[in-house]
Amino acid sequence: MKIALDAFGSDNAPLPEVEGAVLAIKEDACSKIYLVGRKDELERELGRFSYPKERIEVVHASEVILMNDKAASTVRTKKDSSLVRAIKLHKDGMADAVVSAGNTGAVMAANLFTLGRIKNVLRPAIALSLPTLGKPAIMLDMGANVDCLPEHLIQFAKLGSLYSHFFYGVENPEVSLLNIGEESMKGNELSKATHKFLAERTDINFVGNVEPKSIFDGAADVIVCDGFVGNVILKTIEGTARFVFKALKEQMRRDWIAKVGAMLSYPAYGYLRRKLDHNEYGGALLVGLRGNPIVSHGSSNDVAIKNAVKFAARIAESGFLEHARAYYEEEKAS
Amino acid sequence: MKIALDAFGSDNAPLPEVEGAVLAIKEDACSKIYLVGRKDELERELGRFSYPKERIEVVHASEVILMNDKAASTVRTKKDSSLVRAIKLHKDGMADAVVSAGNTGAVMAANLFTLGRIKNVLRPAIALSLPTLGKPAIMLDMGANVDCLPEHLIQFAKLGSLYSHFFYGVENPEVSLLNIGEESMKGNELSKATHKFLAERTDINFVGNVEPKSIFDGAADVIVCDGFVGNVILKTIEGTARFVFKALKEQMRRDWIAKVGAMLSYPAYGYLRRKLDHNEYGGALLVGLRGNPIVSHGSSNDVAIKNAVKFAARIAESGFLEHARAYYEEEKAS
Repeated sequence: MKIALDAFGSDNAPLPEVEGAVLAIKEDACSKIYLVGRKDELERELGRFSYPKERIEVVHASEVILMNDKAASTVRTKKDSSLVRAIKLHKDGMADAVVSAGNTGAVMAANLFTLGRIKNVLRPAIALSLPTLGKPAIMLDMGANVDCLPEHLIQFAKLGSLYSHFFYGVENPEVSLLNIGEESMKGNELSKATHKFLAERTDINFVGNVEPKSIFDGAADVIVCDGFVGNVILKTIEGTARFVFKALKEQMRRDWIAKVGAMLSYPAYGYLRRKLDHNEYGGALLVGLRGNPIVSHGSSNDVAIKNAVKFAARIAESGFLEHARAYYEEEKAS
Repeated sequence: MKIALDAFGSDNAPLPEVEGAVLAIKEDACSKIYLVGRKDELERELGRFSYPKERIEVVHASEVILMNDKAASTVRTKKDSSLVRAIKLHKDGMADAVVSAGNTGAVMAANLFTLGRIKNVLRPAIALSLPTLGKPAIMLDMGANVDCLPEHLIQFAKLGSLYSHFFYGVENPEVSLLNIGEESMKGNELSKATHKFLAERTDINFVGNVEPKSIFDGAADVIVCDGFVGNVILKTIEGTARFVFKALKEQMRRDWIAKVGAMLSYPAYGYLRRKLDHNEYGGALLVGLRGNPIVSHGSSNDVAIKNAVKFAARIAESGFLEHARAYYEEEKAS
């Protein structure tokens, strides 16, 4: 598998991207990486490492999309951006997937304009694989569509099911609707209508509502919600985890016995922080587009980028995209 | 202050309520408690404790509203329920506030029907005081109104400001709008419209959007959102905290050094769990009604009930209700 990597996406670009690419090649995550961005800078940085040279190819792009750039317009005006160049390598068939740690709005817009939607898919969505106490849960949409209709959520359910089946090998994945109660009549207008329509679908294994307090239990394979709520959940998890760790740290500082205890149990914290940390999974998959675009967190480090490349290669191998296209392009109705 | 306590609200009722009432009186949380429910049972349970007898008065109610009862209809059909009887004691002026750990929908419905809304208030809301790394943040609505319009959120902002001012003594409380980005153009239709209207209000100290990852930072005095999103946040916090503690525990079990460490740092965990645990604050305040109704978590124990009684007495003393009524009943427009 060949992966196109936007080398100027992350907050600390291009170091995490350069080091992540070298790590990925050393671990054989894919056969080749196209590292896209300002050539001189990238070659200078790459020069510090030893690795099989033919497996990382620098592709020049003169412009960089900044964090504060307006997503949609920038993608059109900065024609020679590392982000758009990387996506084009994927679109033209040179690469099997594309990875960027750039601002999510811009990455979504650039992929949408460059790759295009799968025919009959109404809205692309951001799908994230959430760590749980059991099997991983694929949640979508995590922020691409802030105002949704039931038909959008139903497509997310189908795309999530295909992702779960082809990527994790789950037979007949169980789909839950994120809601504030387990009963079918609970929730807002959107969730009540979506519940009704999902229950009628014979090609989606809908098992009912799931409350946010249970998303970590590992009960569902796929969890659907609108992008506003998905993004709220993602950021609430981040805030709560940060609060728990900070408050524990502060509390332990007050008491030397607890402090010694904290030092002894440090590896367990490390494990959990990594598990909750986006650096561990590498990125989210944009589903519903004619390609395999991965978006990583802006604060990604080298390990996160390496994991994103690994994830991109595995997604491209999984056949998810081909089956999603086959399903929607043949289907007439939904 | 005199508090009416529904003795048959919690999952393990009436034990937590009876023991909580005794604890509250012993700690002088209020001058008197009306303990409402099946008289024989309550007097038998109370008989096990020694406390100043004249300060807990049992008021008989023959019916109990169950967890699975439909909120609105039950409140009308079960006329002699402990919940409705307790609220009536408050409405009739015998008690200064009312506490129930019954199912939130039923408690909200019963208070709405019995106490009524403050004139000109469109929708009552559930306000929760969230623990943070800094000052407490009052969040509302946490689940009473799943589909909201901007005008509802603006009233929540005002009611939250009055709560913050009179209960916590904050001068000119800072109000944030819960959103998925800090910039004013971010969010869904509801949050964008609400942002615009809040910014125009001269009687609300609106300071902009707050992302869910920052709600624990203690930056805002009041955070407003619709009840669906608020409930999602509440339950995501619950799920994440449970996941973090479970995963830490599991991880520490694998390694005896970490296990010893965990034992030494146990008090710090205990502190934090209590801080995140609803048992610590006792309950949420229903704002916008002609009274001081407190709703506690169904799984409340005796300490949670005691804290709810204490909170109810402090709210009644604070003058919040009188000022909220004065503001809305005099106001003509919003």
